[in-house]
Amino acid sequence: MASTATARRRVLKRLLPITEWLPGYNVRSLSDDALAAVIVTLMLIPQALAYALLAGVPAVVGLYASMLPLALYTFFGSSTTLSVGPMAVVSLMTASIASRWAAQGSGEYMVVVVALAALSGAMLLVMGLCRLGFFANFLSHPVIAGFISASALMIGVSQLPHLLGVSSSGDTLFAMLAALFKALPETNGTTLALGLVCIVMLLAARRWLEAALTALKLSAGMARFLTRLAPIVTVALATWATWGFGLESRGVEVLGTVASGLPSLSWPDLSFDQAKSLGGSALLISIIGFVEAMSVAQALATKRRERIDPDQELVGLGVANLGSAASGGFPVTGSLSRSVVNHEAGAATPASGLMAAVGVLIAIVTLTPVIAHLPTTVLSAIIIVSILSLLDVHTFVRSWRYYRGDAMAMLVTFVVTLWQGVETGLVTGAALSLMLYLYRTSRPHCAVLGRVPGTEHFRNIDRFEAVETDQNVIIVRIDESLYFANARFLEEKIDSLCAQVKNLKHLVLACQAINMIDASALDSLEEINQRLKESGIAFHLAEVKGPVMDRLKETTFLDNLGGGVHLSVYSAWEELHQG
Amino acid sequence: MASTATARRRVLKRLLPITEWLPGYNVRSLSDDALAAVIVTLMLIPQALAYALLAGVPAVVGLYASMLPLALYTFFGSSTTLSVGPMAVVSLMTASIASRWAAQGSGEYMVVVVALAALSGAMLLVMGLCRLGFFANFLSHPVIAGFISASALMIGVSQLPHLLGVSSSGDTLFAMLAALFKALPETNGTTLALGLVCIVMLLAARRWLEAALTALKLSAGMARFLTRLAPIVTVALATWATWGFGLESRGVEVLGTVASGLPSLSWPDLSFDQAKSLGGSALLISIIGFVEAMSVAQALATKRRERIDPDQELVGLGVANLGSAASGGFPVTGSLSRSVVNHEAGAATPASGLMAAVGVLIAIVTLTPVIAHLPTTVLSAIIIVSILSLLDVHTFVRSWRYYRGDAMAMLVTFVVTLWQGVETGLVTGAALSLMLYLYRTSRPHCAVLGRVPGTEHFRNIDRFEAVETDQNVIIVRIDESLYFANARFLEEKIDSLCAQVKNLKHLVLACQAINMIDASALDSLEEINQRLKESGIAFHLAEVKGPVMDRLKETTFLDNLGGGVHLSVYSAWEELHQG
Repeated sequence: MASTATARRRVLKRLLPITEWLPGYNVRSLSDDALAAVIVTLMLIPQALAYALLAGVPAVVGLYASMLPLALYTFFGSSTTLSVGPMAVVSLMTASIASRWAAQGSGEYMVVVVALAALSGAMLLVMGLCRLGFFANFLSHPVIAGFISASALMIGVSQLPHLLGVSSSGDTLFAMLAALFKALPETNGTTLALGLVCIVMLLAARRWLEAALTALKLSAGMARFLTRLAPIVTVALATWATWGFGLESRGVEVLGTVASGLPSLSWPDLSFDQAKSLGGSALLISIIGFVEAMSVAQALATKRRERIDPDQELVGLGVANLGSAASGGFPVTGSLSRSVVNHEAGAATPASGLMAAVGVLIAIVTLTPVIAHLPTTVLSAIIIVSILSLLDVHTFVRSWRYYRGDAMAMLVTFVVTLWQGVETGLVTGAALSLMLYLYRTSRPHCAVLGRVPGTEHFRNIDRFEAVETDQNVIIVRIDESLYFANARFLEEKIDSLCAQVKNLKHLVLACQAINMIDASALDSLEEINQRLKESGIAFHLAEVKGPVMDRLKETTFLDNLGGGVHLSVYSAWEELHQG
Repeated sequence: MASTATARRRVLKRLLPITEWLPGYNVRSLSDDALAAVIVTLMLIPQALAYALLAGVPAVVGLYASMLPLALYTFFGSSTTLSVGPMAVVSLMTASIASRWAAQGSGEYMVVVVALAALSGAMLLVMGLCRLGFFANFLSHPVIAGFISASALMIGVSQLPHLLGVSSSGDTLFAMLAALFKALPETNGTTLALGLVCIVMLLAARRWLEAALTALKLSAGMARFLTRLAPIVTVALATWATWGFGLESRGVEVLGTVASGLPSLSWPDLSFDQAKSLGGSALLISIIGFVEAMSVAQALATKRRERIDPDQELVGLGVANLGSAASGGFPVTGSLSRSVVNHEAGAATPASGLMAAVGVLIAIVTLTPVIAHLPTTVLSAIIIVSILSLLDVHTFVRSWRYYRGDAMAMLVTFVVTLWQGVETGLVTGAALSLMLYLYRTSRPHCAVLGRVPGTEHFRNIDRFEAVETDQNVIIVRIDESLYFANARFLEEKIDSLCAQVKNLKHLVLACQAINMIDASALDSLEEINQRLKESGIAFHLAEVKGPVMDRLKETTFLDNLGGGVHLSVYSAWEELHQG
């Protein structure tokens, strides 16, 4: 009975991590969480409005996508600090994909966006329940870096029309630029001036405000808090200026009157065929969202000496996206900037997310009349300033120095993303990483070994001239696990070694670097053994690792082996070497 | 000058391997090759006719596809024994793909078939010149086995209509069976009887003829030679019977009058768009053809202590397919059965292929009137008997015992090929192999090590209870190269190890099994180092391999390392262990 209760508690803890921290919740945690929630909310409101525009939906939808997801993640997420909600790259992907199905602003466009959130949520949830988090590992870091950099560039360029007060759009960078140049003569001077002032204010605040406030004898914490408020203050000032000076009449575009109050909960009416055709796109959004959220959550968790469960994160993000879809929002994920702020502001539990959701709720109810006068150019200014840090040249330079292949994968992902759009870019990059890895392991490093005279050590005969060899024995070491991609290479390598030496009697494969032998490689080993037997050469193995040996013992390979299995290369040498 | 001449000769040898063996050609080689060519030709004629029907083209096209390819391969191929020409699985793939573009028997169907040969030839040639032979390694043995088995089953079922004397066809196994059952009532008794007699004759010859002839005191070589003639004798007898008894009037379908004489050389008129849409299919045909040819060529070459150059084989097969396209034929590759016969009959050089081509030429010129009376049912009988050996249950059972994942990949490839057709089957199988490999390496075996008291040896603390450990030091060994698929796993593993131990001061990563660290894994190592530093734990490396160390030295990782790099786990222990 006791063990049943324990098991039940473990399942509950796995499904609802909140059951773990809620019992210990106290006033201290409450006040910590509340403070962090206030700061996060003030950052979240302008970001939510801006990323909604980036996703091609009405600004208020960004606020809708920030409440239920934040609240639900509190119950299902495993990270104390991750702040879920709209995020730049995921919003760009959403816009880029939905634009292919319907025109921005149309009712169908909104249906596709909500459907992407719903599908993405369902996929993340299923992946989490099936513990398929390892799927996210298929994207290598250079590919992600290339993709994020290209996305940042596209996000920046996509905001230029708002900044210039013109209307133009496109799916790829070149399409965007072409449309933009065409629309350039219609630039609205007032809009541009307002936008540039906002950009300068935001950059200045980022660069100097914290130091300036500290110089004014404010505490470091207070200075940092006030610096974080720069975006919302900029928005407030720009809105006030637009309203006060009647800039709307000068052609400055504002968000306009939006449906006040709460979103009505509903569920996208999705047919199986629609789901099938949007499925691939939703999967890409899910994976990018998950990878980004995980890297933030994990970095912060380690700082706090906490543990993140990737499969539980999938569940948390999945439920959050389902929540976004239910409230008519777009795909969401963990935000880097807000999560860091949440951590630094001292959030003690995921409850700070729930409180931030309440903050957004209050904003929706009270601020709708104000938001109507909010100029879109200020939101574009916020986006442009925030994506500057995403352009990642450093990783490219570093990869180039460390491993050219990885740098090329990053460059190709970057170029293809800009040139063919986010989906093709990501898929090409992932495929390229795989090819590169397979190519790298398909021609592993091999060494023919000789004995360092008088010792039990064996070294590569090409690197060490003084080693002892035997005319009848070749010892070859393969520095890679044996699997389908290099199985044929192994056959060819051994064929060519044997073709070079006349009167060869023994070939020893030194297996200390072999962590795995798959079925294809086992076939090759059997083929090699058979061929060598027919040529009168005995095939030996040495230093086979325990787990590899365990598997081999299940087969008839060892029974048919022409030579023997030796514990070490030295013991093979001792047995086979003739004076 | 001399070195230029040597270099020129090497290029020539690479482009035209014939330049290597032709100067040493003598009367002895000539007679050996001629004998082998006669036997191969007698096998090739019925196979070429049969596989043409399988590919959905007129039977005589099979003979066209057997001349120029065989002749060209003599000049460009590197295998002494490989017999190039029509081959069952490739013919099936051709029919399956071309049927999607046009109806069998139509002029467009023929255009697509020739285009597939041309594209496949061009691809193989380019892959060979660019030395991209490693692409073929992406198909694991179980996937190939699953694909070949499913193809064999589909080939067998596709021949049943000919055997029954009805007309029905389909793209997948189920479509074929459905069409067949519908057509079943129209079965032609005479056709079926003739076909079954042929099957029984062929099976009986395969099983008993060689032993019977040996018992009649014929030499072993002669007995084997006569046994090999069983298919052509069966064809001759069936044709004679059809003609003699006027079976055509009883509804037995015959090949009918074909264009006598040689094919006119021409080139398929292919637009860029057509090439693009057929490209993927042609690539699959190329890869399967190459993989099959290579495995035969390599096995025979090893028996003869010869060397095969995979990139040269690509060139040889590429030129052969271009030759097939030029003479209006379908995709070709090396045939297992004919190559083995060519080898056993004693072919001394690739010239035996050229002679077999001449043999087919003579047959075309002289045999056209006879071929007109050849019943298709006998060709189906030949195909059915020959594919029986391709159904590979053995590999499945063996894989199942050795590694379930590989067996599952084989089974899925088999089922998807039958259910969705050859292309989807092959692509699914290849993708599955990759996923499986990534999954397998994404959660590598890890061991926390302790010292075997009084020695320099360290062992897994979970397996060996008596080992010595230190409260301040964790030594962890990862048994896999570090790359993007397991980079995150490594971070999680080390996070969880550190979270378990309080007062940890040192973490040593034992690297003896790490053959490579890619850019993603390097990022993870830097992240781990940074996190550990912040937690007051020093990160050490031990037993880093030379090539891995060389790369790490190019980065700033070692400069920032919280701990040190140790030559061995023991020296790390000596330094860090506090009595």
